[in-house]
Amino acid sequence: MRVMGIDPGLTRMGVGVVDERAGTLTCVHEETITTQPGDPVGTRLNYVFDRLVAVMGMFRPEAVAVERVFLKANSKTAIPSIQASGIALLAAATHGYPVREYAPAEMKMAIAGTGTAVKQQVRYMVRQLLGGKAGDDTADSADALGLAICHINSSRMQNLIKLAR
Amino acid sequence: MRVMGIDPGLTRMGVGVVDERAGTLTCVHEETITTQPGDPVGTRLNYVFDRLVAVMGMFRPEAVAVERVFLKANSKTAIPSIQASGIALLAAATHGYPVREYAPAEMKMAIAGTGTAVKQQVRYMVRQLLGGKAGDDTADSADALGLAICHINSSRMQNLIKLAR
Repeated sequence: MRVMGIDPGLTRMGVGVVDERAGTLTCVHEETITTQPGDPVGTRLNYVFDRLVAVMGMFRPEAVAVERVFLKANSKTAIPSIQASGIALLAAATHGYPVREYAPAEMKMAIAGTGTAVKQQVRYMVRQLLGGKAGDDTADSADALGLAICHINSSRMQNLIKLAR
Repeated sequence: MRVMGIDPGLTRMGVGVVDERAGTLTCVHEETITTQPGDPVGTRLNYVFDRLVAVMGMFRPEAVAVERVFLKANSKTAIPSIQASGIALLAAATHGYPVREYAPAEMKMAIAGTGTAVKQQVRYMVRQLLGGKAGDDTADSADALGLAICHINSSRMQNLIKLAR
């Protein structure tokens, strides 16, 4: 299966596409969509939306895994990040892709074995799981690859449970 | 000038279009875009986006006024509302319309003379300002009309200041 992970943010949005074939994970694509904080929010959201739709069209994932956003009081980036997450969900919906949201801790648990893993740990483990050639762009794209792997693992588990029944 | 006001929300998004000709304000259009809380967020955002783009295409406003969202801790509707505001800004950006965001208190001050006006006051004043035939849909569409009027007033003031200089 092919899954696209998205780590939403307006200044930096991480995107990662992972293939799973016979138990082997491969990094197909990794990028960080960046916009300028000085530009109007609408223009920035539009840029991110267009790029996401384009990347989805290029790689045609079977599912999209988006990091779930939470309310963090006193955070300047909370509102743009939540708006960006809306754009990510919209982009997947326009393509008709199934979407699953994962909390940061769920992803970290799936990748590094602990929900409190720091960014470097996630990046290190993403590299290990994808055979070294991954997580080279930014911490955001490494997180996005982590979300894709998290969704693949979760789907495998679901299938095993179905088979067992 | 013709201005579209948008009061962002995912369950109910208020939309109002107001014309100003020689000092007279007219309500051109008023609607409340609604989505079902039980549906996937992406599907709901997609529905709102499509409808906003369609309404903008129908009425071709010269500017769009969107209510500015704030972080409210412990609010269940905060995240969907902020995501919906991102969709509203995106819809305006895809059309290339200039966008201004106004805080709720700015709108209330412009419409009812006090930043702490309650919904009924805003609705009542919107009706008065638009000659009675307005604010009939929901409190959300009345707020949207209020935002459009707020932007028209603000633009008039800007023009007067320019002329005075």
